[in-house]
Amino acid sequence: MPRLIPIDDPGDPRLADYRDLRDVQLRQHFEVEHGVFLAEGAKVVRRAVTAGFEPRSFLMAPRWLDDLDDVLEPSGAPVYVLSEALVEQVTGFHVHRGALASLVRRPLPSVDEVLDGARSVLVVEDVVDHTNIGAIFRSGAALGFDAVLLSPRCADPLYRRSVKVGMGAVFTMPWTRLTDWYDALPSLSARGFTTVALTLAPDATPIEEAVAGVDRLALVLGSEGPGISDRWQQAADRRAIIPMAPEIDSLNVAAATAVACYVSTRR
Amino acid sequence: MPRLIPIDDPGDPRLADYRDLRDVQLRQHFEVEHGVFLAEGAKVVRRAVTAGFEPRSFLMAPRWLDDLDDVLEPSGAPVYVLSEALVEQVTGFHVHRGALASLVRRPLPSVDEVLDGARSVLVVEDVVDHTNIGAIFRSGAALGFDAVLLSPRCADPLYRRSVKVGMGAVFTMPWTRLTDWYDALPSLSARGFTTVALTLAPDATPIEEAVAGVDRLALVLGSEGPGISDRWQQAADRRAIIPMAPEIDSLNVAAATAVACYVSTRR
Repeated sequence: MPRLIPIDDPGDPRLADYRDLRDVQLRQHFEVEHGVFLAEGAKVVRRAVTAGFEPRSFLMAPRWLDDLDDVLEPSGAPVYVLSEALVEQVTGFHVHRGALASLVRRPLPSVDEVLDGARSVLVVEDVVDHTNIGAIFRSGAALGFDAVLLSPRCADPLYRRSVKVGMGAVFTMPWTRLTDWYDALPSLSARGFTTVALTLAPDATPIEEAVAGVDRLALVLGSEGPGISDRWQQAADRRAIIPMAPEIDSLNVAAATAVACYVSTRR
Repeated sequence: MPRLIPIDDPGDPRLADYRDLRDVQLRQHFEVEHGVFLAEGAKVVRRAVTAGFEPRSFLMAPRWLDDLDDVLEPSGAPVYVLSEALVEQVTGFHVHRGALASLVRRPLPSVDEVLDGARSVLVVEDVVDHTNIGAIFRSGAALGFDAVLLSPRCADPLYRRSVKVGMGAVFTMPWTRLTDWYDALPSLSARGFTTVALTLAPDATPIEEAVAGVDRLALVLGSEGPGISDRWQQAADRRAIIPMAPEIDSLNVAAATAVACYVSTRR
């Protein structure tokens, strides 16, 4: 049997991991300091546990228990069972897919570990929106990329919203955070990768040409507003553009990532 | 001079178009019944007016006035000037890019008008998320599609969030809503379009093959969860899939749209 613990007091201290989920800043502090992250929705919770992340606890309304029985039973972590109204009161929002899990963060691997055996890598500079980070992981995983490297300022891919949008791709895709922003691209070139920066510069090469024949590829994506920094544009081996209709200024970074990954995988 | 009207009472009835922007249901009723929609952010406001939509009024904090002077001056519509704190109080959220406009909705064109001269058309079935609808318009416009047809249940592309995510692509891309869901695809085939439904069915043709050599193309996209309905899958001339990595279940509909548009435009 799973360790079911019915709770009817929203102030119960055992629910600390699940409070104030709409307050991004507060959550970021809490999660970093306690070394946890949240998975939301039965499918994503199952993927986190299956991928080997250790659950601290689960929280759900009674009707989600059956669906997750195969996950709850073997884990041994406490399962806090609350009415749906109480779930909403504790978390601060309506949890559509009913189940939450709090899981233990793991130390990030080194860049070398992440790159080991990888042929196609996404390198993401300063994408600060959790939705976009999640979408980048999901598209990268679906379209044949092997790993993700994040610049120091990128949003947290284990933040609840990133995990949800990414449908848990962050659990299985090897990734880490770069510590040296300035020399990140030359350091990849030195490891045998061709770094191709996606840009809107009109003199850039169309993406299909830019990746043609490249063996180990590091596809570099920039932030939502200004795009890739001057430093990274200059440090990249090649600059590539997705050809667009006249008078259209850009694609959303998640859409651009999907197109670039699709094209790159067929290089 | 623009018609500047300073307001310091958040209850002022002239602000009715801008109230309770976080309440989606309430806004949907209000906008339909009053025949208005909102544009948010200086860039998107400018695009709406440039595309010929008639402003009822503008609302902004003082520091946005200069930036939009070229739009405000010729329009003649009242410009309500509020402190940033008051803007937040009226709208119910922090308006990052400071400027809002309320504009008059226009009657939708007929399907024939929208298809006139179009070679590549997106046909969207039951995508109910405003963010996804906005992303589909933006990617379609950027990647060479000429028009969009929405099924009766799709989310409103003129809802504030759709407009914002789409960066105003909905203002220039011809679009309308289908009234006959059941025979929508046969009716497109009868007009000389090849309807290609994007699906996850493993026996579907890879998208590059499915669109190869097609002259007038109607690319059919399905809803976030279940995908394209059985009726539409059966009614489509062809079924296409974006090849994905093993064990990955799907791309987000916006990412899939971007890839499919990119590939289709190169057919």
